[in-house]
Amino acid sequence: MNRNARHRRYAILAPHTFAESRAKTAHGVIAYGADPVVAVIDPDHAGKRVRDVVGYLRSDAPIVASLEEALARNPTSLLIGVAPPGGALPSDWRGAIARALEAGLDLVSGLHETLGDDPEFAAAAQRGQATIWDVRLPPDVPLFSGRAYGVAARVILTVGSDCAVGKMTASLELVRTARERGADARFVATGQTGIMIAGSGIAIDRVIADFAPGAAEMLVVENARHASLLFVEGQGSINHPAFAPVTLALLYGAAPDALVLVHRATRTAIESFGTPIMSYRALIRTYEGLCATVKPAKVAGIALNTSDLDERGARHAIERARAETGLPADDVVRYGGAGLYDAMAPAFAAKARPLAASVAP
Amino acid sequence: MNRNARHRRYAILAPHTFAESRAKTAHGVIAYGADPVVAVIDPDHAGKRVRDVVGYLRSDAPIVASLEEALARNPTSLLIGVAPPGGALPSDWRGAIARALEAGLDLVSGLHETLGDDPEFAAAAQRGQATIWDVRLPPDVPLFSGRAYGVAARVILTVGSDCAVGKMTASLELVRTARERGADARFVATGQTGIMIAGSGIAIDRVIADFAPGAAEMLVVENARHASLLFVEGQGSINHPAFAPVTLALLYGAAPDALVLVHRATRTAIESFGTPIMSYRALIRTYEGLCATVKPAKVAGIALNTSDLDERGARHAIERARAETGLPADDVVRYGGAGLYDAMAPAFAAKARPLAASVAP
Repeated sequence: MNRNARHRRYAILAPHTFAESRAKTAHGVIAYGADPVVAVIDPDHAGKRVRDVVGYLRSDAPIVASLEEALARNPTSLLIGVAPPGGALPSDWRGAIARALEAGLDLVSGLHETLGDDPEFAAAAQRGQATIWDVRLPPDVPLFSGRAYGVAARVILTVGSDCAVGKMTASLELVRTARERGADARFVATGQTGIMIAGSGIAIDRVIADFAPGAAEMLVVENARHASLLFVEGQGSINHPAFAPVTLALLYGAAPDALVLVHRATRTAIESFGTPIMSYRALIRTYEGLCATVKPAKVAGIALNTSDLDERGARHAIERARAETGLPADDVVRYGGAGLYDAMAPAFAAKARPLAASVAP
Repeated sequence: MNRNARHRRYAILAPHTFAESRAKTAHGVIAYGADPVVAVIDPDHAGKRVRDVVGYLRSDAPIVASLEEALARNPTSLLIGVAPPGGALPSDWRGAIARALEAGLDLVSGLHETLGDDPEFAAAAQRGQATIWDVRLPPDVPLFSGRAYGVAARVILTVGSDCAVGKMTASLELVRTARERGADARFVATGQTGIMIAGSGIAIDRVIADFAPGAAEMLVVENARHASLLFVEGQGSINHPAFAPVTLALLYGAAPDALVLVHRATRTAIESFGTPIMSYRALIRTYEGLCATVKPAKVAGIALNTSDLDERGARHAIERARAETGLPADDVVRYGGAGLYDAMAPAFAAKARPLAASVAP
């Protein structure tokens, strides 16, 4: 959840890595973040601007050589934008992090290691009266109770054919379009990059298995207080051998009213396992079939990621998805969210009801 | 996992509670435990024997009034057989636990609170050179890797229509029958009572969601070194709103070759939610359908819990399960495991193969 509700201005730490794809957390926060980025720290590209280095980003910011130059732009928080190459924090990163904390900047980290437990950083944070937000560390969450069934907001969950196919991005693009259409829409983050973008959320995969649906429910109940249409970031895939339990925790715990299926058009097997990716129809049947046993929800449309196809290939893949399923399908990054959103909007209008005869109030 | 591989002789602590159903951990360990019980501590029934108080238990042991009387019977370990009424440990329990540790008895606890973190108990354990095994605390586990696909043992997983329908008991009864038939069979525990019975295991529901399938895989890989037929204790149900992710972690992580469906004949809704329990055919279709997307496994038969039906009702329920599914069905507690085991045995003979083109070695 949000450990620091005040509005943030980010300096992003990404030394010698900002141009690389593993700086995708930095790129995601720049592209979609709720809070502005005032500087990126990467001496390799100092003097340039973000768009000079990563062309597709819509927002821009200056790139500077050091923390000290970034401080001149009045950030409130230092965000670690990449995992350190090799795992452990390099000493120049450690120095910059400690100096940022002493200068009173809050630290926002998605690293596996808990930086709040680091004695040097903890001491620096105390001296600077700064907070350390390890976004992967889940808060205490209750068991799933059924409270999610009672929210007035309509809940739309992205479900995928695999990890890393674009569920977070599709959710964010649909929120953007929904707001353009005047809907009171909100993105609900369930993974580390999503949490940094939204400024709040819970990394569901880090919650103890018994409590994972309760964490999803907690997010829905919280966010439903502030918006009437929630797009919940999905995780994994229902036939991912390692991550499907997290997928299912969201499918039942977030208690969605409708689903959006997300697939990377060129992906044919689950990464690192080789498990075949199901056909669109099998995916839809499986997700809808499970929802039908607890709280019915239908797939409203397909958000296709065609980023590694050319224009003709992309149009063909989208057409094939429509033909195979009879559902709206589009690439919301390539062609914008308007077409898919408008086609799905009728399916987002109604609340679904759980099968349960009695649920918690 | 097993923190203390030596053979144990248990004294079970169950003051003023042994006759009650919430002493079910004590009853389970007495009925099915791999390690003998030399004494039960409950002053309310001191002088009697276990079977005088809980008639259906097959094993027997004396009931004594105090830890000191239990010590005279040379236990190696003190097992906490019930959750303390009201939550916190009563002071007379604390005293007995500390004295047991000082006397060198290992402590085995399935309580939510981690007794190894209690300063008084930790100090007593150090003085007595005793260990404290909090069975709910999971070990460090890796991510699921696909190693479970490579084991030679055949893996049979119980899957249920709800929590608390008898999956552990069915697994244990089938192991017993398998051994009587000469099979090299082993029970694989995934919940606290099962772990106490087996002397090892991992409480899957306490593992971080991302790692829950890896924990199931680790159990299968470990146990496959020692047996050729594994009966893995299932958890929850695939349409349980709160616990289905744990169910799915076992379904994919244990990589079963066959399933045994367990249902309590009189249960019609998921406890505490009211979610309707699926028909036999829908349950089978759902479990087999999910397995078919990763590693195919079929339901070999149905273990029905008819404990709250009379004889005629039990026979009728079993007949109905057979007629609706065309599968073998029986109550393995009421009628023994032989009939169901023999009918299912052909389905336990072969290894299934994952769909994955490539899996970890």
